[in-house]
Amino acid sequence: MRYAKGHGTGNDFIILPDADDRLELDAELVARLCDRHTGLGADGVLRAVRTAEGDTGAAAWFMDYRNADGSIAEMCGNGIRVFARFLIDHGLAAGPELGIGTRAGNRLVRRVADGVFSVDMGPASARGTGWAIVGERRCEGLAVCVGNPHLACVVSESVAGFDLSAPPAVDSGQFPDGVNVELVRVIGERTIEMRVHERGSGETLSCGTGAVAAAVAAATAAGEWPGQRSEPWAVAVPGGRLTVTPSPTSSLLVGPAVIVAEGDLTDAWLAEPAISASLVP
Amino acid sequence: MRYAKGHGTGNDFIILPDADDRLELDAELVARLCDRHTGLGADGVLRAVRTAEGDTGAAAWFMDYRNADGSIAEMCGNGIRVFARFLIDHGLAAGPELGIGTRAGNRLVRRVADGVFSVDMGPASARGTGWAIVGERRCEGLAVCVGNPHLACVVSESVAGFDLSAPPAVDSGQFPDGVNVELVRVIGERTIEMRVHERGSGETLSCGTGAVAAAVAAATAAGEWPGQRSEPWAVAVPGGRLTVTPSPTSSLLVGPAVIVAEGDLTDAWLAEPAISASLVP
Repeated sequence: MRYAKGHGTGNDFIILPDADDRLELDAELVARLCDRHTGLGADGVLRAVRTAEGDTGAAAWFMDYRNADGSIAEMCGNGIRVFARFLIDHGLAAGPELGIGTRAGNRLVRRVADGVFSVDMGPASARGTGWAIVGERRCEGLAVCVGNPHLACVVSESVAGFDLSAPPAVDSGQFPDGVNVELVRVIGERTIEMRVHERGSGETLSCGTGAVAAAVAAATAAGEWPGQRSEPWAVAVPGGRLTVTPSPTSSLLVGPAVIVAEGDLTDAWLAEPAISASLVP
Repeated sequence: MRYAKGHGTGNDFIILPDADDRLELDAELVARLCDRHTGLGADGVLRAVRTAEGDTGAAAWFMDYRNADGSIAEMCGNGIRVFARFLIDHGLAAGPELGIGTRAGNRLVRRVADGVFSVDMGPASARGTGWAIVGERRCEGLAVCVGNPHLACVVSESVAGFDLSAPPAVDSGQFPDGVNVELVRVIGERTIEMRVHERGSGETLSCGTGAVAAAVAAATAAGEWPGQRSEPWAVAVPGGRLTVTPSPTSSLLVGPAVIVAEGDLTDAWLAEPAISASLVP
């Protein structure tokens, strides 16, 4: 079984090229692949399947995205850039612009420079204010919907000083399905730093929708959201740098896409049963 | 650059075949390779270099072992099994028995079954008793030297119940260079379960010298160490199962060796500068 390993600002993925939709990718295999000690290790799997719409050029490839636990996911702003780079590097898509099918609909991705890709993240909207307790500190934030729910808290001190080792407490009435929490600080002209706690995953090195939410919060604090002006914000995340142009209809996320390595899984490993680490609580 | 990824009971490694000793493997490259998000991810790197003694058959290959942070290490009981499997799978060693050069001297490794290898771990010796505070619980243990220092604590309750998220406190007069701490419980006939806190690494899924120390402690508790009798102990670790025959002169460690995948690093990744995650404290 052929694979590639790649990352976008530290959000890492296993790409499985499967043009003819032949791989039987069940949750157990995804979890084994993503296991960071006994497998390849990744935040998720991106299976690349050729679509019937390929002839029209609308979205010649579908990104079958799975979380590390094997569950199905809709879209990933970091993953789709890596996915696009893989396709273009291998001549499977001409580029520089390509539509990619996802469970959240077709998304337009564009190669804007060597190893740098933009992706249309769709609509973003502010949904009022809220609060989170991060460590023992109460933070006021802006609720932002980027397909998924966020609470982006603009703070005045360095985001490095906060404790994100545990999930921030939030108003469960406001966020009945949980929420991703961003800590955001303006560190320069149209430049912010951000750390994120993703619901279900804990702190991560980067989050594409979180970067969009952070830019919406920063734009709101700057008095330019919602409005006509739509200029990019630089977003420093622990895994690198992203650029976001927030928009009520089609926010643009720009960032690196890296292919680290390519290879083949061994038949012996594929035939092996899963290992459970039952001794660790 | 060609590589393989493998593991032994969840202790995982990147193997770099370098028969002619041409790779310039500096600490930065090792750390980049072992980064679990922006690299391949592993506990360490095993560079395989052909030796001058190859003609005599004493140790045709040297295992240049590096820790994930790039520092140089001497020997690894899990890594050397993976190393031996890689050589035999590729026809680089005939097997089933081969000497492998390490910084701790030549070690004899033997393929004992499909995917299972034994390794001579050298001498082990008990050095009196000691104590450790694990979480808030005081544990009495046996100090054991297996080349490196261990404190193996035989406990009566399940090892799953202990908190190893922080380094156990120990008598710094007794262990001036730190110590690896094992929690050991007898769970059946000649069968123990073990969790380990490795100095400098935290809790790990497995530790070869730790398994030897645990078996010495169990044998001591059973009144058969030091003595003539030398029977194997089964050791369940979070990452799988090992078998240890403890001995004052040449303890034998037996366990699985898995090659997960093989491939090539991309030139683009190799040319990239390192990424620092400076936002996370």
